Amino acid sequence: MAASVLNSVLGKLEMVSTSDHASVVSMTLFVALLCACIVIGHLLEESRWMNESITALFIGLCTGFVILLTSGGKSSRILVFSEDLFFIYLLPPIIFNAGFQVKKKQFFRNFITIVLFGAVGTLISWVIISLGAKQFFKNMDIGFLDVGDYFAIGAIFSATDSVCTLQVLNQDETPLLYSLVFGEGVVNDATSVVLFNALEGFDIKNLDHTIALSFMGNFFHLFFTSTMLGVLTGLLSAYIIKKLYIGRHSTDREVAIMMLMAYLSYMMAELFYLSGILTVFFCGIVMSHYTWHNVTESSRITTKHAFATFSFVAEIFIFLYVGMDALDIEKWKFVSDRPGTSVAVSSILLGLILFGRAAFVFPLSFLSNLAKKTPNEKIGFKQQVTIWWAGLMRGAVSMALAYNKFTSSGHTHLQGNAVMITSTITVVLFSTVVFGLLTKPLVSLLLPKQSGSTASSDPVSPKSPFTMPLLERGHNGHPDEVDTDGDRIARPSSLRLLLTTPTHTVHRLWRKFDDTFMRPVFGGRGFVPQVPSSPREQQNF
Amino acid sequence: MAASVLNSVLGKLEMVSTSDHASVVSMTLFVALLCACIVIGHLLEESRWMNESITALFIGLCTGFVILLTSGGKSSRILVFSEDLFFIYLLPPIIFNAGFQVKKKQFFRNFITIVLFGAVGTLISWVIISLGAKQFFKNMDIGFLDVGDYFAIGAIFSATDSVCTLQVLNQDETPLLYSLVFGEGVVNDATSVVLFNALEGFDIKNLDHTIALSFMGNFFHLFFTSTMLGVLTGLLSAYIIKKLYIGRHSTDREVAIMMLMAYLSYMMAELFYLSGILTVFFCGIVMSHYTWHNVTESSRITTKHAFATFSFVAEIFIFLYVGMDALDIEKWKFVSDRPGTSVAVSSILLGLILFGRAAFVFPLSFLSNLAKKTPNEKIGFKQQVTIWWAGLMRGAVSMALAYNKFTSSGHTHLQGNAVMITSTITVVLFSTVVFGLLTKPLVSLLLPKQSGSTASSDPVSPKSPFTMPLLERGHNGHPDEVDTDGDRIARPSSLRLLLTTPTHTVHRLWRKFDDTFMRPVFGGRGFVPQVPSSPREQQNF
Repeated sequence: MAASVLNSVLGKLEMVSTSDHASVVSMTLFVALLCACIVIGHLLEESRWMNESITALFIGLCTGFVILLTSGGKSSRILVFSEDLFFIYLLPPIIFNAGFQVKKKQFFRNFITIVLFGAVGTLISWVIISLGAKQFFKNMDIGFLDVGDYFAIGAIFSATDSVCTLQVLNQDETPLLYSLVFGEGVVNDATSVVLFNALEGFDIKNLDHTIALSFMGNFFHLFFTSTMLGVLTGLLSAYIIKKLYIGRHSTDREVAIMMLMAYLSYMMAELFYLSGILTVFFCGIVMSHYTWHNVTESSRITTKHAFATFSFVAEIFIFLYVGMDALDIEKWKFVSDRPGTSVAVSSILLGLILFGRAAFVFPLSFLSNLAKKTPNEKIGFKQQVTIWWAGLMRGAVSMALAYNKFTSSGHTHLQGNAVMITSTITVVLFSTVVFGLLTKPLVSLLLPKQSGSTASSDPVSPKSPFTMPLLERGHNGHPDEVDTDGDRIARPSSLRLLLTTPTHTVHRLWRKFDDTFMRPVFGGRGFVPQVPSSPREQQNF
Repeated sequence: MAASVLNSVLGKLEMVSTSDHASVVSMTLFVALLCACIVIGHLLEESRWMNESITALFIGLCTGFVILLTSGGKSSRILVFSEDLFFIYLLPPIIFNAGFQVKKKQFFRNFITIVLFGAVGTLISWVIISLGAKQFFKNMDIGFLDVGDYFAIGAIFSATDSVCTLQVLNQDETPLLYSLVFGEGVVNDATSVVLFNALEGFDIKNLDHTIALSFMGNFFHLFFTSTMLGVLTGLLSAYIIKKLYIGRHSTDREVAIMMLMAYLSYMMAELFYLSGILTVFFCGIVMSHYTWHNVTESSRITTKHAFATFSFVAEIFIFLYVGMDALDIEKWKFVSDRPGTSVAVSSILLGLILFGRAAFVFPLSFLSNLAKKTPNEKIGFKQQVTIWWAGLMRGAVSMALAYNKFTSSGHTHLQGNAVMITSTITVVLFSTVVFGLLTKPLVSLLLPKQSGSTASSDPVSPKSPFTMPLLERGHNGHPDEVDTDGDRIARPSSLRLLLTTPTHTVHRLWRKFDDTFMRPVFGGRGFVPQVPSSPREQQNF
C-alpha cells in the first residue's frame, strides 16, 4: 500500500517536472533569448569590445530583472540550474570543439609550457586561493565552512575562462600567445574539475602525508587514463570509418558516428569516474587528425561547422543562464541583511585571484624562458602580462562547480553556502564584464599591431621555410591546416632547427611513427580516394 | 515545517532523477547502442531488406533481453519513456528535416491529393478503427474503456510510419508515388496528433452535433494557425539572415540561427497549444526555399547534412527504444494470465488497420483520378496497392500517443490500459517487422524496374521540356533542386500545360508572386553575392 502510494506520488512528481506547460514556456523563452543573443551579438560585433558572452550576460540580467518584476519578486529564473545540464550537455561540445579546432602543431610545440601553466600553475593558484580564503574568512561571520570547503573554493576560483581574451587575440599575428592562452585554458579547466572531483572523494579533514601522496597519485592517474581513453575512442572512430568507408553510402551516417563517438568518449569517462573534459578534448584532437580525413568532403564541412555551432550555442546558453541566475532572490536574501560581508568576501576572492595568478605566470614564464635558446621563443614581459590577464576572468565552470558544491539542485539553505554562491556570481559577473571589457584596450596597448614585437612572438624564425605556408593556411580555419607542412621539416634547413629546438626532433619522430604505424591503420590526411582535383581549394568559400 | 520537509524531499527526488550514476550508465549504453545500430545498419545496407529501423528494433529487443536476464527479470529498460523526450526532442528534428528536404515542386503539385489522403483519409481510418474497436472490444474482458478511450485508440492506430516504404521506393523512378507516400506520411502524422490533442480537450462522452461541429472547427483552426506560424517563423529567419547577412562574419552564427529558429517554431506551436509537427514542417519548407539560399555555401552544406543527421539519429533512437521497451515486464504481467486476449486484441487492431486503410485509399484514389485529365497522371491500381501497403506500418508516433494516453510517465496500473499498451507494442513490432520486410518484395513485384508502368507514374509527360533537368538534378539531393527549372514554365509549350493541368497555372501564379513580392524581401535562390563561378558545381562531392 505504502509502496503504491509512493509510486503514484513519484509518478506525479515526474509528470510535474517534465510535462508541465511551464517548462514549455521557459524553453520557448530560452530559445528565443538565444536567438536574440546571436542577432544582437552580431550587430555589436563591429565594436569588438562587446562579445557574445557579455551580450548574453546582459540579456540574461535584463530578462532576470523582467521576470523578477512580473513574478512579483518571487523568482528570476526560468530554468533551475542543474550541474547535469552543464556537465552532460553544455560542456562536452565546447571542449570537444576546442580539441577539434585546435592548431595541433602549435599546441604540441608548446605542450610543455602549456602543461606547466595549465596544470602546475592551476595547482599553485589553488593552494594560494584555498589558504588565502581560509586565512581571511575564518574571522568573518559568514557561516561555517570546513577545510574541504576551502579547498573546494580554491578549485572553484582556479577555473579560468579565457573566451574574452581569445576573441581579442589574433591567431595569425600572435600564434605563440594564442596557443598558450588557449591551451592553458583547456588544461586549466580539466585540472580544476579533476582537482574538484578528487577532493570530493577524499577525506580532507585529517590531512597527512599519506593522503596528500595518494591524492597526487590519484590526480595523475586520472590525468593519464582520461587522456588515453579519449585517444583510444578517437582512434576507434577513425578505424571504423576507414574500414567501412561509410561515406560511400551516406554522409549523414559518418557525421552521426563522429558526433556519437565524441559524446560516447565523454560519457565513458564519466562512467569510469574519469575526467570527461580531458577525454573529450583528446578525442577531438585525434578525430581531427585521423577521423576527419577519412570522411567525405561534405562530412568534413558539416562536422567542422556543426561542432563549432554547438560549442557556440552552448557558450551563449551558459552566459545567458548565469546572467539570469544572478538575480535569483533566494540566494540574495541570506546576504541582504549584511551587504558589507558579501562585498568583502567578493573583493577578497578577486584579490586572491589576481595574486594567485600572478604568483605562477611570472615565475613559470621565467622557468620556461630558461629552457628556450633563441630570444624569439621566449615569452616577453608584455606577453606575460597578457597571459596573466587572460586568465583573470571566471566563467561557467566556476559557476557549475560552485553550484555543485554549495547547493542541492539549485537551492541553498545554509548561510555559508548562500554567501559563497552570491560571491561566485559577483566574481563571475565582475570579472567577465569589467576585466572582459578592459581586455581589448589592454591587448592593443601591450601588443600594438604595427610593432615588431608582435611578429617576434612567432616561435618560428621569420626566415624559416615553413612560416609562409603556415600563415597562408591560417585563414581557412582548417582543423589541421598546420599539419600540411609536416613533410617540409625533413628539408636541409632542419639540421639547424634540430640543434636549436629539440621539440622539432620530437615532432619529427612523431611524424615518422605516425606515417609508418598509425596512418596505415587509422587513415588520416590523404587517405580517402577523392575526386582527382584537389578538394582543398574548393573549400575556401 | 511541512513545506520545508516537502522542499527537501523534492530536492532529493530531483537529485535522484538527474544526478544518479545509473543515468550515466544508461546514457553511455544508449549512445554505444546507437553507434552499433549505425555500423550494423551500414553493414546490412547491401541487402535492402533490413533497414536501420528494423536493425534498431532487433538490437533494442536483444539489449532488452540481456538487461532482463542480468537484472533477474526485474526490468528491461534503461531509460523510462517520456512523451516529452519524444515530442520535444526526437520528433521535431525528424519532421523539420522532412520539410527541409522535401521536393517542394512535387509536393505542391500533388498537394490536393496529399491532403486528401493525409487528412481526409486519416479521418476515415480514425472513424473506422474507433467504431470497430468499440464494437469488438465491448464484449471482451479487457477492463474498462470509455468512449474517449476508443476515439483515442482510433487516433493512435491511424498514425502511419512510412519509413520502410520510403527506403524502398526510388524518388527518381517513381516521383509521383514517392511524393504521395512521403507527403501523406507527414500530413497523417500531423492529423493524428492534432486529432489526439483535440480529443483530449473535448468532452466526448456527451457527443452531439454542436460538439462535433466545434470539434471540426477546432481541428481546421489548428491546421491553419499551425501552418501559418511555421511559415511566419521561416520567413522571419530568412529576413534576419538576409538583412544582417550574418555569414559575412561567421558561418556558425547562421547555422545556429537556423537551428534555433526551427526549434523555436516548434516550441512556440506547443506553447500556443497548436500542432508543432505541422508548424515545424512548414517552417522547414520555407527555410529551404528562402533562408537556405541566403547563407554561405558552407552553411548550406552544414545545415543540409546536420539536419539530416539529427533526423537519422532521432529515428534510430526511437526504434531502439521501442525495441527495448517491448520486453518491459511490468506491462506484460497484467496480460500474462490471459495471453489469448492480448493476441485477439492485437489481431483485431491489425485487421482494423488493414481495412481502415483500404477503405480510404481506393475510394480517394478513384476520386483523385476523376479530376485528372491524362492517363499518365492517374494513380494506377498497382500504385494504389503500394500506397495502401505503405501506410500499414505503425511506429513511434503510435507508441508515443499510446504512452501518453494509457500510462502515467511510463507506468501502467490499470488492466485495460496495460492491455492497450501491450497491444500497441505488438502491433508496432509485428507491422514494422513483418509488413516492413515484405515491402521490398511487394514493391519489386508491383513496380518492376524495367516495366513501362514505372515510367508512366511520372506526372510530367516524358516529352515535356523540364523532365530532363528534373531527373538530372535529382541526384545531388539539393533541398530545392526541382525549383531550378521554375523559369522554364513560361516557355511556349506551357500553353498546352496550362490547358491540361490547372495546377501548373497555380504554380506559375505563385512563381510570379514569389519573384515580385517575396524574394525581394526574404531572399531565396540567387540572393547572396557569391564568388563569380557558380558554387553549384562545387557541391557534387
